Parts: sequence; C-alpha cells; structure tokens
Amino acid sequence: MTTERRDAPPTAEGWYVLHDVRTIDWAAWNEASQRTRDRAIEEGIEFLQSATTVEDDEGDSMVVSMLGHKGDLMLVHMRPTLADLDDLERRFERTALATFTKRDRSFVSVTEASGYSERGREFIEGDLDDDSGLARYMRSRLYPEIPEKEHVCFYPMDKRRDPEYNWYDLPFEERAEHMDAHGEVGREYAGKVTQMITGAIGMDDWEWGVTLYADDMTDVKDLLYEMRFDPSSSKFAEFGPFWIGRRFDPADLDALLAG
Amino acid sequence: MTTERRDAPPTAEGWYVLHDVRTIDWAAWNEASQRTRDRAIEEGIEFLQSATTVEDDEGDSMVVSMLGHKGDLMLVHMRPTLADLDDLERRFERTALATFTKRDRSFVSVTEASGYSERGREFIEGDLDDDSGLARYMRSRLYPEIPEKEHVCFYPMDKRRDPEYNWYDLPFEERAEHMDAHGEVGREYAGKVTQMITGAIGMDDWEWGVTLYADDMTDVKDLLYEMRFDPSSSKFAEFGPFWIGRRFDPADLDALLAG
Amino acid sequence: MTTERRDAPPTAEGWYVLHDVRTIDWAAWNEASQRTRDRAIEEGIEFLQSATTVEDDEGDSMVVSMLGHKGDLMLVHMRPTLADLDDLERRFERTALATFTKRDRSFVSVTEASGYSERGREFIEGDLDDDSGLARYMRSRLYPEIPEKEHVCFYPMDKRRDPEYNWYDLPFEERAEHMDAHGEVGREYAGKVTQMITGAIGMDDWEWGVTLYADDMTDVKDLLYEMRFDPSSSKFAEFGPFWIGRRFDPADLDALLAG
Amino acid sequence: MTTERRDAPPTAEGWYVLHDVRTIDWAAWNEASQRTRDRAIEEGIEFLQSATTVEDDEGDSMVVSMLGHKGDLMLVHMRPTLADLDDLERRFERTALATFTKRDRSFVSVTEASGYSERGREFIEGDLDDDSGLARYMRSRLYPEIPEKEHVCFYPMDKRRDPEYNWYDLPFEERAEHMDAHGEVGREYAGKVTQMITGAIGMDDWEWGVTLYADDMTDVKDLLYEMRFDPSSSKFAEFGPFWIGRRFDPADLDALLAG
Amino acid sequence: MTTERRDAPPTAEGWYVLHDVRTIDWAAWNEASQRTRDRAIEEGIEFLQSATTVEDDEGDSMVVSMLGHKGDLMLVHMRPTLADLDDLERRFERTALATFTKRDRSFVSVTEASGYSERGREFIEGDLDDDSGLARYMRSRLYPEIPEKEHVCFYPMDKRRDPEYNWYDLPFEERAEHMDAHGEVGREYAGKVTQMITGAIGMDDWEWGVTLYADDMTDVKDLLYEMRFDPSSSKFAEFGPFWIGRRFDPADLDALLAG
Repeated sequence: MTTERRDAPPTAEGWYVLHDVRTIDWAAWNEASQRTRDRAIEEGIEFLQSATTVEDDEGDSMVVSMLGHKGDLMLVHMRPTLADLDDLERRFERTALATFTKRDRSFVSVTEASGYSERGREFIEGDLDDDSGLARYMRSRLYPEIPEKEHVCFYPMDKRRDPEYNWYDLPFEERAEHMDAHGEVGREYAGKVTQMITGAIGMDDWEWGVTLYADDMTDVKDLLYEMRFDPSSSKFAEFGPFWIGRRFDPADLDALLAG
Repeated sequence: MTTERRDAPPTAEGWYVLHDVRTIDWAAWNEASQRTRDRAIEEGIEFLQSATTVEDDEGDSMVVSMLGHKGDLMLVHMRPTLADLDDLERRFERTALATFTKRDRSFVSVTEASGYSERGREFIEGDLDDDSGLARYMRSRLYPEIPEKEHVCFYPMDKRRDPEYNWYDLPFEERAEHMDAHGEVGREYAGKVTQMITGAIGMDDWEWGVTLYADDMTDVKDLLYEMRFDPSSSKFAEFGPFWIGRRFDPADLDALLAG
Repeated sequence: MTTERRDAPPTAEGWYVLHDVRTIDWAAWNEASQRTRDRAIEEGIEFLQSATTVEDDEGDSMVVSMLGHKGDLMLVHMRPTLADLDDLERRFERTALATFTKRDRSFVSVTEASGYSERGREFIEGDLDDDSGLARYMRSRLYPEIPEKEHVCFYPMDKRRDPEYNWYDLPFEERAEHMDAHGEVGREYAGKVTQMITGAIGMDDWEWGVTLYADDMTDVKDLLYEMRFDPSSSKFAEFGPFWIGRRFDPADLDALLAG
Repeated sequence: MTTERRDAPPTAEGWYVLHDVRTIDWAAWNEASQRTRDRAIEEGIEFLQSATTVEDDEGDSMVVSMLGHKGDLMLVHMRPTLADLDDLERRFERTALATFTKRDRSFVSVTEASGYSERGREFIEGDLDDDSGLARYMRSRLYPEIPEKEHVCFYPMDKRRDPEYNWYDLPFEERAEHMDAHGEVGREYAGKVTQMITGAIGMDDWEWGVTLYADDMTDVKDLLYEMRFDPSSSKFAEFGPFWIGRRFDPADLDALLAG
Repeated sequence: MTTERRDAPPTAEGWYVLHDVRTIDWAAWNEASQRTRDRAIEEGIEFLQSATTVEDDEGDSMVVSMLGHKGDLMLVHMRPTLADLDDLERRFERTALATFTKRDRSFVSVTEASGYSERGREFIEGDLDDDSGLARYMRSRLYPEIPEKEHVCFYPMDKRRDPEYNWYDLPFEERAEHMDAHGEVGREYAGKVTQMITGAIGMDDWEWGVTLYADDMTDVKDLLYEMRFDPSSSKFAEFGPFWIGRRFDPADLDALLAG
C-alpha cells in the first residue's frame, strides 16, 4: 500500500471560456410575427457583434451554426474573469433572440498550458524571455485568437482512472512522454487544424475541453482517428459528446434564421 | 511502458451524411385544421422531393417511416459539403411540416472507405485504374446510390478501448485480419442486405454509422446475429441504439400522415 | 490471436411484434369535456377491438393496464409484416384517445425460435413432420396465442460480451448446454408462467424481448429469481427495464379511464 | 465450464407495494384560483384518508413530504393484490390534486422474507407454530405496520453479477453467512431504525426496495455507513437513488401546500 | 471467503444542508409584465434575505449565480433539522420568484466530521476540551460560517467499491493514512480555498458533497488537479457533476435578473 501522491504538472491559465450550445425553437420562430422576428434578429446581431468586437486583451467571442439535433447555435465567449462570462450569459438571455432558444449544453473552462516539458515549466515559472518564440506561443494558447477557419469541432474529455489504465497513477515522466508523443500527431496537422485546450477540473463535469478549427472537416477526422491509436488516447482518454458546426458572422444571423 | 502509436488505416471520404430522426407531434397534428395540415403536407412534399431529386453527383436523400417511439420520420441527406447539410437542416425547419416534428436524434458523418486491405490502400492512394472493378466498387461506397429496398436499419457503433479488448491497441495486421473476416459475413448476404458505412470520429458521439437496406428485415437480423459471434464484434464492438423503418416516396407523405 | 467466428444458432422467425408503452396525460384527461372523453373512449375501443379481433393467422393484439410511472397502457401488436405494425402505430396516433397519451417506450422485435437443440434445428431446417408435437410447439412459439392470464411482465435483455463473461465467445456446445439448463427452470413453471421470446438484433436497442404471462405475479418473481442463479443469467445476461400490468378487455377502457 | 445452478433461497411474499413519487407543479399551483386549490386539497385529503384508513388486513398507506428536487410527495400503498394498487393509482390520477402533480418515479414490489436461515425456511415452509415469536416477526415483515417515526428513507438496490463480485454465483451457505452478518448491523439499530424489505425481481428495474423509518435521520446515515463496510454491501450491493422525507397526516395537506 | 466487516469511522453531524439548483425560465421572465417581475423580485428578496439572516446557531443560507446551462441560481440552506429545510423549500416555491424557476438538481446532506484521526475521535467522543483549538475547528466544520469569498464550487462524490479499488474493503488504518495524506493537499491551500464537507449516505444519491469557496477559481482548479493525483482520489474517488458560480447579496437580485 502507498499513499504517495504523483506529481501534478504545473499549469498556467489564461481566459475563462464559456461554450454555450443552444437549440432554436423553430416552431415558435416560424409562428412569430415578422416584427417579432425582426426585433429578435436585431437584438441578436447587436449582442453578438458587441461580444465579438472586444479589445484584443479583453478576450473574444464567436458564433457557430451547429449540425444535427444537439444544437443550432454555439456561442463561445473567452474573457478574463468568470464574472464577465456570467454577465454575458445573462445579458444574452435578456435579448429577444434568446427567447427563441433553449440552452442545451454548456461547458465552463479556462485556457490552460501544462508544464510537462521543461520549456513549458520555464514559461509557467516565468523563466522565459517574454519575447522568445516559445513564450509567444504559450501566450497564444492562453490568450488565443480565433483562426479564420470555416469549421469548429468541440468535445470535452477525461483521463481515465481505471485499475489498468490509470493516468493519475502514472509517474510524471511517463505522462510527459505520452504528452510529447501525442503532441507530435497534432504538429503533423499544423496549418490544417488549430486547437484550443481548456481545463475544467473543478469547473465542469469533464476535465478538459478541446476546440478544433479546420477548413476541411476530414482533416479533423484524420487527426483524431490517428490520435485514437496513440496510447495516451487508446488507453487513457475518455471522450464526451462531439459538437460540430460552421462559424458565421453575426451580421449573417438573418440569413441563418431564414432557413 | 510504451508510447508507441499503432498505425491508423488510411481512409477515403465521400459525401457528408445527416441522419435526422424526428418524432411527429400527433396531438398537434390531430388538432390542426385541414388547411394547416394541407399546407404542411404541401411544403413537406416540396422540400422532400427537391431534396431527393438532386443531380447524381450532388448526393441524394431519402425519407423513412420509422417504427416505435424513437422516431416517426428519418430524413437521410448525403451531400458534398457540411454547408449543404447545414442548409438542408435549416430549410426543413422553416417548412410548415417541421413545425409538427421534434428532432429526437441525429447523426453527422461522412461516407468512409478504409485501407486495411492492400487493394483498399491502392485505391485510397490513387494507384488504381479508375475503370477497374474495385475502383468502381470503392467509389460506390463513397458516393452510394440508395438501393430499391423496402427497409432501412441504422445504428452507430464504436470500437472498444478496454484493457482486454482494446481495438486501438491491436497491431495493424491483426485489425486487418479481423476486418477481412468480418467482411466475409457481409458478403454472404450480398443482394439481400446492402450497407453504407460512414465515419464520425470528430463529428458525432459514436465513431461509425451503419446504414443497412433490406427487403426482408430478418436478413438484417440474421446478418447481425452472425456478425455478433465474430471476434471483431463479440470482443471489440460497442453498439448504439438501433432505428428501423420503411422507405417511402415523398409523394406519399399525405397517406403516411393520414394514419 | 484468432479471428475465428463462433457459430450462430440457426433461428426461425414468426410474427413481428410491437410493444407500445404509453403514459396517459391525466391532467388533460381530467380537464377534457365529457364529450371529448366520450369520443376518445369510443375511438379507442373501436381501434383496440379491431386490433384484437384479427384472423388467427393475421396475428393478435392485447391491451395492458400498467403499474407505476413508466406507463399506463401497453399495446402489444403481433403481425406478419413490419408494414402492418407501422400502419397500426400510425392509425392509433390518429385516434382521439392517442391524443391523451404519450409514447414513453416501445420495443420492435420478431418472435424467434433458436436451434440450439438438435430437434430445434430439425424444425428450423424443415425436417420435422408438421403434425409432430414438437413442430406444433415450435409453431406456437412463432405464432403465439395470448394466454388467458391476468398479468403481463415485459423486459428486454442482452447477452454480455465482457472479457470474462462473453456469451458470444463461448463454443456452440457450451451455449447449447446453458440454454438447455436455463429452459429446465422455465419448464418447472409450466402452466403457471407462459413466455413469448422475441428477437430484436438489428431492430431495437436490446437483443431479445421476454413477455411473460401469469395469474400470480409471485410465480414470475419466483421463476426469475431462480433463473438469476443460473449461469446463463448470473454470468451472461444483462436486463433492461421491467414493465408489468394487467390485461384488460378493450370494452373496459371506459372503466379504466374513470379511475 | 459449468451450467450448474446455485440454489435460490425460498421466499415468502405478503403485500404488494407501490412507492409513487410525485413532484408538485408549483407554478400551476401558485396560479390556480383559491377555489381550484380548495377543491384539490379537499379531494386530495379525501383520497389520502380513505387510502390510509383501510382495515388492518387490507394493507396500509402513508404520505411523505419529500426533500429535494426528486419529489415533493411520496405515496406508499401496500395492498393484497396488484389490482388494488392499479386501482389506487388510477383513482388518485382522477383527483383534482393529482392534476397539480407529475409522477416522477415509482417502484412496484412486494414485501418479502427470505429463507437464508433455517428458521426462516421453517416459517416459509409452514413448519413454525403460528403463535411463535418468530412466526409473528416474519408475518410483521410481510404485513408490516407503519411505525410512528418522523422520517422515511427509500432506495432500490441490486446484488452484483460481476466476475469478481458475483452474488448469484456464491454458494448458498456463503450467501447465508453474509445475510446473517448483514442482519447483525441492522439489529444494532433496533428501535432507532425500522426497515421494510420488498422484492421486485420481475416487477421493477431493481431487485429490492428498502424502506427505512427513523426519528433521527443520522441514525439511518450511521446504519447505512456501517453497512457499507460489510462485504455483502461493499462487494455485492449496487444502490439506486435515495429518497427521503417526512411523514405527514393527510389532514395536514393544506398546511403542506401553503408553503 | 470472509464476511468480516471493516470498521466504519465514527462521525459527528451538524447542520442539515440543502443545495437547491434552479434554472430561470428566461423566456417567461422576458415576457412577464414589469409589475409581475417587480413582485417576483420583491418576494424573492424578502425570502432570500429572511433565509440569510437567521441567528448564528440557527444555520445560514447563501445565494449563488451559476455559470452554464446546469443552473442559474443555487440556494444553499444549512439548518438544524430536515423539517427546517423542508419548510424553506416549500416556502420558496410559494414565492412569485420561484414560478420563474425550475428545480434542476438538489442535494440533501448534513455537515460531517470523520474520526479517522485519534484527535478527531476524541472530539466525536466528547473527550476534547470544548475550548481547545481542535474542538473549535471541528465545531466550525459542523456549524460552518460562509466565508467572504466570491466563487462557490459544489460537487458530490462517492468512494469506489470495485474489485481492485474498493475503499470499503480497505483496513481502517489504510483509509486513515489516505485521509491524512489527502488532507495535506487541502492544507496547502489554506486561506485560498475553504471547504465544507457534508455526508449524504442514506440521504441522497452520492455519498458526500463538497462545497468549496475561493476568490480565484484557478486555486480550486489547482487544488483539485493536485488532489486527483492522490491515491485516495486517483484510485478511490468517483465524482459527480460540478457546479460553479458567484455568491451575490439577495438585495442584488434585481440587477442579476436585469441581465
């Protein structure tokens, strides 16, 4: 028997992120008067545009048209504080557009960088030159820009704690090697698939959220298929539901709702 | 310990596919005025006919009358892009027919061919003569025609990643042998049961979707019962819910809704 | 490693069966006018009587008053084709009675006899004299009469495919012995408990449906408790939800709904 | 391989029991007119009082005010036949009070005594003197009186059938020893916690229901915490949801609904 | 085989606690008249203020604005008896504010201190001087003050009872060592993260509830991430859903609902 605790990696956090997935009540929408719809669209565009046009250091927001029954709209907000997200959530609920939507799912997390590599730890401990390439890269993960890509894929995930596949019982070095090998797959898709990793331990029901951006969804499929054969996934990962959709400009809300 | 990654098979993708399962709000339908119902049927037929009569290289659509409480209608759309599916989904929601329906489930995927066999890999890598039988066969899986069969069965599935039954931890060759043996069962039912395989990794909550067509549903039952004894199923497969129903011509929507 | 496939037993199928479990919207029922209720009862009796009075070789139907929150009514239809069931389902939805009900669950399957025993295989392969006792018994399982017993119990079930308890990985002979031993328990309750076994692989989310009839529900409890200690259940069975209720004559619908 | 069946214990059954958990639609209640509420309370009291004042040998009923979102009211009916329960369920639905409630969960079972001990088997087989202390005790378990205690705790449970923890694969003697040791814990709380055990195999989704009565809920907590360390629980038990609440006199329904 | 029971730790209990998570029906709120909203806010503030301003020895209450779709408001009440909680729950339901909310989840438990350490046992057995530091600390856990921190995190948890990871089958001493090591992690975050532990065995579906308070939510994330590598978590803990939010003063209800 041992009560010895494995070492957690140091982490750095950036913006808090709210993934807010909503279904549209199409029956109500179809039956609403043109005037009511116009007001909903106007208030919707106003809210979405104000959310997406914040200062660079105040976060960012995006709007996604979702595929399938699990959602019609996904609003993603990144902000410096949970209070900001709480405020955005309630402000949206007060718009005439929100009245035609139902919150189906959400995910509350914060952008995260882990110190599994020595260089990562140096950044987290503040030992890296702020202007170094790595420091810039790490900051871009904590305060990410939304890339100009058409599709968005989002899913939450856990690391397993089963007797034979227990991530949290692996020595630090072994986890570091897994993370490194796992990262290699991602790097093969550089330019094609961009990722945002957010941590949710203590904040939501899954441990991490993965948000992927790609112009060609089969690149996402290829990437995740390949990763599934990687031991860090094949043995240690548990995946939640997957949501996919297409980013759209708030100004196009009218066209989206016109069907 | 090993962080070595097993090889993923190469894959080819064709059309994106949306399985859209809907229940009918019969209480609302029964209480609607004849005029409202007429308009719903008219708009429904119009939408469904336009969806099912696209050019051969633009995909296809079908409509299925479902059995049981899990759905009344299943619309299946195959199209070259996700944008096409997104558009179809929203256009349907704007019809008067959709107002009487509720999206109960859906599945977003893309037709897929895997390169577990050498010949499969040759096709995927473009090394096969376009006019060869195999190339034609492979293309028919990526850009499938909907066969003239009465019944449709749809279910999603995963491959297991458990300590003793971990598909993603098997060597490539072993998986290839499993896939070959598994395919043999299917070939015994050629002519009786036609299948469409779609991949959904990164796109939906299950890894694959299986759509089967048969005139006699006991052929589907026999085929799947036999397959369940195959190690690739008995040890490595996890099945989602099953939906079955009967294809119908959009023009018969009136009769279907008349009860 | 082996990709060898275990032998599936041959099977014979008879009538398709729809178990259609519905809850009554009592609030709506209580608030409806007497006239509306009268019409609902009239249309309900008409539908149920027509469903239960088909020719002997055209199947049968029964109506059950369910206990507990999982349902108020269970309609069970047995018919030669899925088209028949599809038609019955939609015809019921169009009655004024259905408007006061919600489909809570359903199960789509087909009566099944398995050829685990040599005599069973002979029947399935058509080698038995049609007038022999066994042939008559097998036909009575495929085209069952509804026995005159007060209570009905229905549950779906699967056989496990776990590493240590994998039914589908057992040799045929071992499964045959299990089935034989399992059947023995059932035979002890002959006369007290009558069963209908339906297969649902490829048709619904569980592999089999079990419908039991008994005048005394403690006989069902005793039978299933005893069976649970049988290795084919204790090691290899996974049970779904259980529904129980009491058969009633469609003509008594009025009394049933009067509370 | 063995197809040998473990011995089931003999059992005796008494009254059928319906646990009927309901939530109150407070929004509708708050908006109802005083007159409507008065009628609902009047009909509610009438029904509940008639249910709770049956002859001693005709069963009993109680009403519980539940804590938390899982229910507001739990009606528990014990009766000699399922037909009695079916009738009570539908009669309640027809009251004006029921219109303000929604059935959230229920449990259908029957009081059960098991013959794991020799003395238990003697009672079940009718070999005990009817006037003996044990016979009286056993009868009090099959035809229980509702004790005058303030709190009620109800939960369903199963015995596990996993490879390493398979209750149904244990020899009879081993199970008997477990049951005896388990009973010892219960006896330590005699006077503080009273229990009613009901069997539900073949009748509901869990195998047993446990209904506990106590004035001090921390006695229930202490008892169940202690039992959880007992191998029959720590290795072989699977617990369903827990419901707790406070018994109240039907005549106090008005005060309860006044908030 | 052994039927030997492991020793449960002695426990002390303090106040009963109700976590009451509610979603706001924003559509109804947006459509309500100003007068109706004013009344809802007035009654809401009145109820919440009266709940939060009880005498020190009568418990306490707090109100939290939740993030994400799992809830908008969480009311937490701590009181000496379950009757108090039952009363608060029903009184809130009768307010005009409650009409705009839906109970989404709740958790019923009681503050708990365990006697895994010798000093803990001394307190529970009453052997500690009431004025000693430890006695004061233990009482502060049983009758906790709500700390002045901005964020609240709540989640329920279980200890596992699996063959390889069975908490309830560990010797007392081993569990005591685990608890001690686990507590060490918590102590590193003293001042940053404050915790309230409540026991729910026999009262709700999970065994314990954990309520954490912090000004900086990344402290909660760091704490729980570190704890997840501790064997008492990595091997023996099962976590339920996580809820997070921000405490607010009842007087600010108006601003909160203004969006």
